[in-house]
Amino acid sequence: MKKLIQDKTYFLKDMLEGMRLTNPDVDVIEDTVVVRAEKKQKGVALVSGGGSGHEPAHAGYVAQGMLDAAVCGEVFTSPTPDKVLAAIKAVDNGDGVLLIVKNYAGDVMNFEMAQEMAQMEDIAVEMVVVADDIAIEDVEKRRGVAGTVLVHKYAGYLSEQGVTLTDLKEKVEGLLAGVRSIGMALTPPLVPTTGKYGFDIEADEMEIGIGIHGERGITRTTVESAENIAQRLVTRLVTEVDAPEVIVMLNGMGGTPLSELHIMTKYVSEQLVAHGKKVTHWLVGDYMTALDMQGFSITLAPHDDNLLTALKAETESRYF
Amino acid sequence: MKKLIQDKTYFLKDMLEGMRLTNPDVDVIEDTVVVRAEKKQKGVALVSGGGSGHEPAHAGYVAQGMLDAAVCGEVFTSPTPDKVLAAIKAVDNGDGVLLIVKNYAGDVMNFEMAQEMAQMEDIAVEMVVVADDIAIEDVEKRRGVAGTVLVHKYAGYLSEQGVTLTDLKEKVEGLLAGVRSIGMALTPPLVPTTGKYGFDIEADEMEIGIGIHGERGITRTTVESAENIAQRLVTRLVTEVDAPEVIVMLNGMGGTPLSELHIMTKYVSEQLVAHGKKVTHWLVGDYMTALDMQGFSITLAPHDDNLLTALKAETESRYF
Repeated sequence: MKKLIQDKTYFLKDMLEGMRLTNPDVDVIEDTVVVRAEKKQKGVALVSGGGSGHEPAHAGYVAQGMLDAAVCGEVFTSPTPDKVLAAIKAVDNGDGVLLIVKNYAGDVMNFEMAQEMAQMEDIAVEMVVVADDIAIEDVEKRRGVAGTVLVHKYAGYLSEQGVTLTDLKEKVEGLLAGVRSIGMALTPPLVPTTGKYGFDIEADEMEIGIGIHGERGITRTTVESAENIAQRLVTRLVTEVDAPEVIVMLNGMGGTPLSELHIMTKYVSEQLVAHGKKVTHWLVGDYMTALDMQGFSITLAPHDDNLLTALKAETESRYF
Repeated sequence: MKKLIQDKTYFLKDMLEGMRLTNPDVDVIEDTVVVRAEKKQKGVALVSGGGSGHEPAHAGYVAQGMLDAAVCGEVFTSPTPDKVLAAIKAVDNGDGVLLIVKNYAGDVMNFEMAQEMAQMEDIAVEMVVVADDIAIEDVEKRRGVAGTVLVHKYAGYLSEQGVTLTDLKEKVEGLLAGVRSIGMALTPPLVPTTGKYGFDIEADEMEIGIGIHGERGITRTTVESAENIAQRLVTRLVTEVDAPEVIVMLNGMGGTPLSELHIMTKYVSEQLVAHGKKVTHWLVGDYMTALDMQGFSITLAPHDDNLLTALKAETESRYF
């Protein structure tokens, strides 16, 4: 396996050590929890996380204006409840804690357990679950993908505005009611901890509707042009997003060059225009990746002035 | 060939259109020149560029605090002198223009021709050539690689401080006298305009000393651990960098996940410490890429307070 790693056992530990070395604004506690070096003294504290392999999510968003802590599991593996609890305790300042969790059974269960444990210690904790991936028909089973990063930024901004825990949860759920994503891939991720590819695929094939943990897509075809790919994804997305004005995240999967993301942007833009949509803001880059997978996802959020203000607000994270 | 493109003929055009759509602070003129939408009214104007395929370099650095224009050739192909001249004329505000060029025969020739043409029109134009890649023994033939991005930021800062053209050139040359880089790759780039890989390599091999256009390295071995790779590169770099304090850029080659860049950071840090070097600032991410190549480079710059101030100064570029 060709990977820039020392040993698969140390993947997470080494990665977090590299992050800590290069970012004086964060600390690592409990070996797996990234927290802001200067604890936020007021406002709802925000905790997210999940399996690793999605960098810069989630640890790269621990910064003024975004998260207060990221609980990092091993690659594609949920962090345990005790680590989530440690994160909650580390960031709680008395104004309450919001957990931002992607909709995977392990993550939801472990964050929920930590929430209950924290509540027993009289810490006010609420949880929101992101389930934006419309590749999955069954709404209950929809995975949390790149839309999660919009939540990090939106909630980070609202927290700094002094919004209370109850209101913050409500506002984030309002955002989530409208956010939809779908992704595609040319190649599967190579998982460094197992040495295996997420799925097998031929040299001339692509997958539509992939997940971010090497889950296969819902449609496999021979590779198509940028225009056709954009058409497939946008046609599907607009069936679930009514708004005439949208904010768009075009998210790289980790191994996709920025040039190709910008090429896709042009064709996605054309498809949105063809469907009568006006784009009020674009975010293009690697936000929620799947190791070294080549591919991308599109996330649409109905335009909202407050959301746009939040997305444009300053943050110390260099990844947003 | 699996690439997110419409047609190899439109690679550059489509990419620039995507960039323009998503960045209201830039315009594209002459089909290939990215300029700031609001022309800088005073201070030396900075023009860089070269072949495309290195994104976010160079166009992503056209922003307040960095470049005034990037002249974008086709993939791995120098832009023509008339386009460079158009860029110079577009950005000149009377305070002179500095061309920041990587040391490749075509780039140097074409930027030099444009410089001469502009001088005939009484525009003050100076040029600096970046040749930081120590994989090449012959100093005259050293390629310009990731160190170029440090120049963009340093010069952008100095220009905003009102440094004159003559002084700016001298200061940049002072920086370049100390900047050294070397890179490695696990995979070659797949060049979308030809459908070919930059070089052939076996599934268990890596290359040390690669270029950023699919040039093979100077050493090929079976894949090694992160520690051994860091040792190879740092041992070579420190022979040319005396300074006890260094600024380090760990640059991804386009297809390398951020997780692996951070893992390498840890081991590069250890090697630098072992050589008695103190790191005063880290830059980790994709700055000067080679399409979708998996690999990275290390750039060392001797610590300098002014350089550090420049690197930390605000810029509107979202890629620095």
